[in-house]
Formats: sequence, C-alpha cells, structure tokens
Amino acid sequence: MSRPVVSYSDGHVYAFDPDMTPIHTAADGESLTVKTADSLEGAVQTESDLLEEIPEEVNAATGPIAVEGAEPGDVLAVEIEAVRLREDQGRVVTAPGFGLLQNHEEIEHPSTRITPVGDRHILFGDIRLPVEPVIGTIGVATAKETIATLIPHDHGGNLDTTDMTAGTTAYFPVFQEGAMLAMGDAKATMADGEMCGTGAEIGVEIDLTVSVVTDSPVDLRRPLVQTGEAVKTIASAETLEAACKQATEDLSRLLAQEHEMSLTDAYMLSSLTGGLQISQVVDPLVTVRCGVPGEHLPNPLKA
Amino acid sequence: MSRPVVSYSDGHVYAFDPDMTPIHTAADGESLTVKTADSLEGAVQTESDLLEEIPEEVNAATGPIAVEGAEPGDVLAVEIEAVRLREDQGRVVTAPGFGLLQNHEEIEHPSTRITPVGDRHILFGDIRLPVEPVIGTIGVATAKETIATLIPHDHGGNLDTTDMTAGTTAYFPVFQEGAMLAMGDAKATMADGEMCGTGAEIGVEIDLTVSVVTDSPVDLRRPLVQTGEAVKTIASAETLEAACKQATEDLSRLLAQEHEMSLTDAYMLSSLTGGLQISQVVDPLVTVRCGVPGEHLPNPLKA
Repeated sequence: MSRPVVSYSDGHVYAFDPDMTPIHTAADGESLTVKTADSLEGAVQTESDLLEEIPEEVNAATGPIAVEGAEPGDVLAVEIEAVRLREDQGRVVTAPGFGLLQNHEEIEHPSTRITPVGDRHILFGDIRLPVEPVIGTIGVATAKETIATLIPHDHGGNLDTTDMTAGTTAYFPVFQEGAMLAMGDAKATMADGEMCGTGAEIGVEIDLTVSVVTDSPVDLRRPLVQTGEAVKTIASAETLEAACKQATEDLSRLLAQEHEMSLTDAYMLSSLTGGLQISQVVDPLVTVRCGVPGEHLPNPLKA
Repeated sequence: MSRPVVSYSDGHVYAFDPDMTPIHTAADGESLTVKTADSLEGAVQTESDLLEEIPEEVNAATGPIAVEGAEPGDVLAVEIEAVRLREDQGRVVTAPGFGLLQNHEEIEHPSTRITPVGDRHILFGDIRLPVEPVIGTIGVATAKETIATLIPHDHGGNLDTTDMTAGTTAYFPVFQEGAMLAMGDAKATMADGEMCGTGAEIGVEIDLTVSVVTDSPVDLRRPLVQTGEAVKTIASAETLEAACKQATEDLSRLLAQEHEMSLTDAYMLSSLTGGLQISQVVDPLVTVRCGVPGEHLPNPLKA
C-alpha cells in the first residue's frame, strides 16, 4: 500500500491563514492517513497535570496538506473513512476562564480526569462510554484573516462537531490555491456542546480521501457535512442565535435550489424535519449546525 | 373501556397560572385520553388563510386536569403512550414579527402551506415527511406568575421539544395542589428549532397516564423527560446561552447524585456523551435540553 502518511511530527499549525506552506501535496482524489497529537500535545498525562490556563498555542493541526488543482472558488471534499485512537488514554479537563460553567462556584477549575481506553470504550471512573471519535479542528487556509486553531469560522477550524467522524464527507470552501487542509484536536468521545471545554482529548489517525469539486453550482461559504443520514450546514458566530440564523439560511438556500422552491417554502420545510443542533458552546465563537435527512438533499453540491 | 376523555371542547386555557380550575380530576395513576385543537384553532384551513399576526390567544391547552394527591413539592409524571392525528391536514405558517428569519428580505411573512396527512406521512408539496408527532405545549399551574401558553418556563408550557411524544415520560414540578396539567399546540412533525415559528400544526389525541411522585429525592425545578433512549433536562431562558447553562447545571446535578460524584466530575461527564440540543429558538423564551443516554440516569427521580 502506498497510502501516504502525514504526521504531527512532519508539521503542524496553530492557526489557519491565507499563506500556508504545505508539508504534503496530495493528488486530487488521493487517499491518505493523517496522524494527530491530542489538543494539549501530551502535556496532561495524569490527574495531577492541571491546566491553569488554556495555552496560547493549542489544538495543533497536522498539515497543511495542499490538494492539487484546488483553486479559490472550488470546494474541497474530505471523505473521512476511519478515525483510530493512537493512545491508550484520553483526558478531560476544566481550566480557569474556560467552559460553559466557568463561573460556577461549586465546579473546580482546573481539574483533570484521565480516561483509559478499553475495547471500543473509554472509562470515566467506572463508567464505560463507547468510543465515538470526533475530529475537533479541521479546516483550510482562510481568505484573509489569521485565525487560531482554537477558533471556528467559515474556513472550518475548531468546529467541535460530533458529525466530523468516519462515514462523513466534509465540504469546505477553497479560499487559496491548494486549499491547505489541516486537522487535529480529536476526541475519543464528546457530547454535543462540549460544555466543560473538552471531550476526551486524544491523538488519532485518520484515513481520508481528498477531492476537488470544481463545478459546484452551490456558492459554498461555510463548511457542510454529509453524514450517512443527513446533510448539515455549519455556522459559527458570537452568539448561538446568530449561528442558528446563518445555518438555517444556508440550509434553506440548499433546499430551495434542490427542490426548485422559493426560499420561503424551503425555510418552512426546514422547520419540519431535522433541524438545528448545537456543536459547541465554549470556543471564542460558538458553532451550530442545521440539517435535514439526506434524502432531501441527496447531492448537496450538484444542481 | 372506561378511559376518560378530556377534550378541547370540554375546556382549554391560554395561560398557566397559580389558580387554575380543573375540568377533570384524575386519580393518581389514571390513564386518560386528551384531545387538543391545533394551535391556531382551525383558523388556517387553506393556503389563502394568512396569519397577519400571532393571535393574542394561541396554543389553546386542553385542561387543566387535576391529579389527586399532587401537592406542591411533589413531581407529576406524565407517561405519553400515544399521540394520534385528529385531522386530515396540518398547516405550516410564517407571520410578521415571528420566527428565526423574520427580518430576512427574501422570506415572505405571512405565508401558509397546508400539509395533507397520508398513511404515516404528511406532504409538503410533493415531499413526503414521516408523521412524528410532538406535543408543543404541556405544563402545570405555575408557582406565582401568569404565563401565556405561547411562553415556556419552569412549569413547562410552550417547550416545543421533539422528545414530547409517545414513549416519553415527562416530569414536571408540582407548584399547586392537583398540579393542573394542560396541553395542546401539537405538530404532525417538527424540526428541532421550529425555525419558521411552527411545525405542521394539527389537532391530536393523546393517551397518557398521570402519577404523582411524592418522595422524589431530586429537587426538580424544571421539566425533565425520560425517552426510550435518554434522560434530558429542559431549560428556557432569554438566550440560548443562558438556557444551555441552566440545562447543563441541572443535568450535572442529577449525574452527581446518581453516581455519587462531585459536581465537577458530573460536569466533565456531561461533556462526553449526549449533550445539548436545541428545542426551539422562536418563542419569547428559547428552550434547550441537555441529556445523557438513559443507562447513566436509569431512574432520575430515585436516589
């Protein structure tokens, strides 16, 4: 097998920006394996390792990977085939000034719990939780800004979206030549919301296939996921309300195009099936998604 | 069969308040059928029936039903056994000043779509959507305030939560003698978020069993649902962020009690499985829920 492997040790970034230098160049349609470090890069290995603050550099994203032929205006499709844990334990942490209940007087900040990995499960104390990996940070070079890997936005980044896992194809707008894909910040499992600020953070290896959609009739401005069951727009904003509005408008536009209906009808249809889901409520911008069962958007990027 | 039937025509309310007069008194453990009108009480029957504004009285809730023995401090358990459609069509509407995208210039307010009911599906144009009924408004007499049936709060009310359907047991804090249960505003199907402001609004009949939990070790302050798969706290607030905080804290307290762990550990556990879900983003207060798979809270009201 000649599947290329791109590792954290080959190169990683702490920000997405317009001018990224690739550590690997993939052919359009190439299948490769990406190895990532946990979001804290090994700094937390026991329950005595406490995080007094979120490090300035966090969520190291392995890459970037240039994809041949990707030009601004194209769409990058990332088919996620498998996500395997690379460590025998993960970690869940709270840290001062971080997390949904950061000001709750009965909740300790910092605190750390180590989550040993068993056979298809992890342990939180004596509670078994199934391994359901999530790629927390995944994105491409931005149009103009430099955006730290802690932050989600239209380029992807710290989306912390549980759908970002095996079986999903993620679509990103291409803002720069080569797209410049990078990813990291995986979890062995994570709740929608990621309320305490982390899931069970862990290094993983990801099998994926990258391809360029050059003739998308959809003006894709933000990430989109196609899971085995649903198609979902993803939007990040300062408030959940603003993110909900953007994700709903984006989904309604896709439905209107697919079904040749008015935006009003598409909006009403969006209120009947699927709907809004919370991705995360703890990053500098918060993230939601808005979806419908896949049968209503069978091929979201084709007219 | 002597199952009592309580109908919209027997009595209905447009507000939950502390001093409600029952139209039926149920024994503790009684099984009954409740018939509701659609949220617009028949005013919208064709696509020419447009809603220029939300009526002052909306979401008529059939009831209230007193439950014998329910006293302030108890918990009312409502086991929802079946929800059947009573009409051969539902309706989806937008109205000026209402809905998530009410200020979007390309979306028409008002607009109406009629959704005919078929065999286990409804039609939106030529799109088939499975019938998945939701009881939009369900609640009990309040502690002090008068709260219109358009508004959700700690007594329940307009929760617009897709889990409020057959197979779920809903728990409400009892604030007044007899609890005074009332419900209406059902939908044939509804997306999480109810973005345009409605689902497919329709009259239904609901089979349910009411019972009083007198010795709850949990100080239940807001509604809670136990579905076939999960246990979820429900919280309503002025912003989604505030509702997320409340629902997460409430769930963390239940987990801490069940597993005899610190609130910090329970909060970290809540970030690993299940998580936050949006109920609705369109009512005067918005509603979210926070859940875990049922195995982690097998009996949420027993110590």
